[in-house]
Amino acid sequence: MRSEFDLIEYIKKSQTRGNRLGTRALVGIGDDCAVIPKDSESDLLLTADMLVEDVDFRLGWASPADIGHKALAVSLSDVAAMGGSAVCSMLSLGVPESLWKSDFVEMLLDSYSALAARESVELVGGDISRTPERLVIDSTVIGECPRGESVLRSGAQPGDAIYVTGSLGGARAGLALLERGGDGPGSAPLIARQLRPVPRTGVGRRLRELGLPSAMLDISDGLLGDLGHICSQSGVGAELDLTSVPIENGVAQAVGEGPVGSGRFEGLPQPLLTAVAGGEDFELLFTVPADRIASVPDQILGIPLTRIGSVTARGGIEAVGTGGGRVTLAPEGFDHFRGSDL
Amino acid sequence: MRSEFDLIEYIKKSQTRGNRLGTRALVGIGDDCAVIPKDSESDLLLTADMLVEDVDFRLGWASPADIGHKALAVSLSDVAAMGGSAVCSMLSLGVPESLWKSDFVEMLLDSYSALAARESVELVGGDISRTPERLVIDSTVIGECPRGESVLRSGAQPGDAIYVTGSLGGARAGLALLERGGDGPGSAPLIARQLRPVPRTGVGRRLRELGLPSAMLDISDGLLGDLGHICSQSGVGAELDLTSVPIENGVAQAVGEGPVGSGRFEGLPQPLLTAVAGGEDFELLFTVPADRIASVPDQILGIPLTRIGSVTARGGIEAVGTGGGRVTLAPEGFDHFRGSDL
Repeated sequence: MRSEFDLIEYIKKSQTRGNRLGTRALVGIGDDCAVIPKDSESDLLLTADMLVEDVDFRLGWASPADIGHKALAVSLSDVAAMGGSAVCSMLSLGVPESLWKSDFVEMLLDSYSALAARESVELVGGDISRTPERLVIDSTVIGECPRGESVLRSGAQPGDAIYVTGSLGGARAGLALLERGGDGPGSAPLIARQLRPVPRTGVGRRLRELGLPSAMLDISDGLLGDLGHICSQSGVGAELDLTSVPIENGVAQAVGEGPVGSGRFEGLPQPLLTAVAGGEDFELLFTVPADRIASVPDQILGIPLTRIGSVTARGGIEAVGTGGGRVTLAPEGFDHFRGSDL
Repeated sequence: MRSEFDLIEYIKKSQTRGNRLGTRALVGIGDDCAVIPKDSESDLLLTADMLVEDVDFRLGWASPADIGHKALAVSLSDVAAMGGSAVCSMLSLGVPESLWKSDFVEMLLDSYSALAARESVELVGGDISRTPERLVIDSTVIGECPRGESVLRSGAQPGDAIYVTGSLGGARAGLALLERGGDGPGSAPLIARQLRPVPRTGVGRRLRELGLPSAMLDISDGLLGDLGHICSQSGVGAELDLTSVPIENGVAQAVGEGPVGSGRFEGLPQPLLTAVAGGEDFELLFTVPADRIASVPDQILGIPLTRIGSVTARGGIEAVGTGGGRVTLAPEGFDHFRGSDL
């Protein structure tokens, strides 16, 4: 098994072999959430995210409150990416002896619960186990969406416009600051983007209510990687206007202004690379059919919506706007070390 | 934080403080599954179980196929314990690099999927992450039950009879055999009970359809510990007839026939101790109101049902039948190292 993407394909094939996919799940393996019929009016949305110490977070950087917040936030973001509303949640914790004896778990739970209360999500169950060393968290969120209205990754069509919410690169820049152990002027908002991501739940729901997105997901792997997911699952390509990508304030100071010196992104300004490849911003990336573009508002709930490109019929992602050049990027080249949804 | 039970209490209190429990979940933290209204006819059942390498299983003893089977089986057992039917599932895997490079994960998934197919459960999502060393699995199952008919832990009343399905002690005896590295004559069925537990899904559902159980759970912590859960959540006590406890065939050969030499169970035959305290048998423990006892069949789907005691109004568990003696056992003395449901 080479990568998580291979594994997703393996599971999809197993399911198809067994002729089971589609008997109950409308959409399963491979989107932000599984979609299951609930009743005549609603579908259920199901998502799980596993966070592992020293892979997804470090106890030296993240407080128990940060970890509790992020565990729920990443799953809420998956529900937002379907245009749904989170309803309830489960939390499984594998806790090493050293943390079990302190008030670490209570602090984690208090922060988890605070976000749950703000988002009207009820913690209804889960599991607690002990681990030999590292903290492991699996966060499950159950949401709802009006029947058949969930926004999938597979609905983009050639000619659709590509949009992103908010601004990008902040979470990766915050990670760079944490790695350097620095908290210079202006670093706090970037570190907060890394440690306390804010799921775009209200924005995702509103976009779906407005009937705008043909495809949507949340940016966890990075803009290029996640745009690649939309392209491969929709069977389309994309032209990305690099000059339009909204870069989070302060990223340039955090990662440096200069161009990338070598490799496949040679010449790209470092802040732009951080914005397109950084990951974990948990903004929403979505496509809008050409005849609906005029209806896209400038912002929703105070979060700007920015057009950053167009869906094309040819495969792959072409980036334009870097000194007039045109670079073809593989659609699926971003198998990050951290996991992504099945 | 002292134990998983402390944590369950902490979460319950947090929920009550926030005045949230009961707004959506009929039953949440503290039963085998959370119960959520689905539609006018059905409730949803939700359960999660985390399994950690070297805590819940060892790669030296359990094959990838064993682990995949057990991960799903323990969650199906929770749905069985509510009298429900499993519908779909999610699987989160934290996989160390060494296993990622082999076909370990495919073998685990094939076995998981084989059990899922037999139980008509569809794997619809989950997550894959990497871990620095150990394999971690979180298994989530979503089930259904007719509205308001889930069998809780809290419904036992004084005068109810206490029953158990199948026979006990086999899983613990199988573990003892694995620990000794032995597989002598007759060891295979006991090792299978440890590594490949069979969830009592059909039996649990049928018991609920017959309207028999006033309370039910699955035996994961051990008969005494799990009976303690029913007692504490129902606000009752229990009288357990030790002579009636069904002991799995072969347990005596595996753990020895002699009496326990010291400690709180001094004098109890070793096979009986294994049956009442061993854990992980995943049989169903249930109580039946006095006026329904005559309707309890001898077996369901080939699995025997055995009466092992009565619910009492006084607190605590009294064990009778060991040489005419009567021993009072604490109702909640079995905080096993392995996790139990929130």
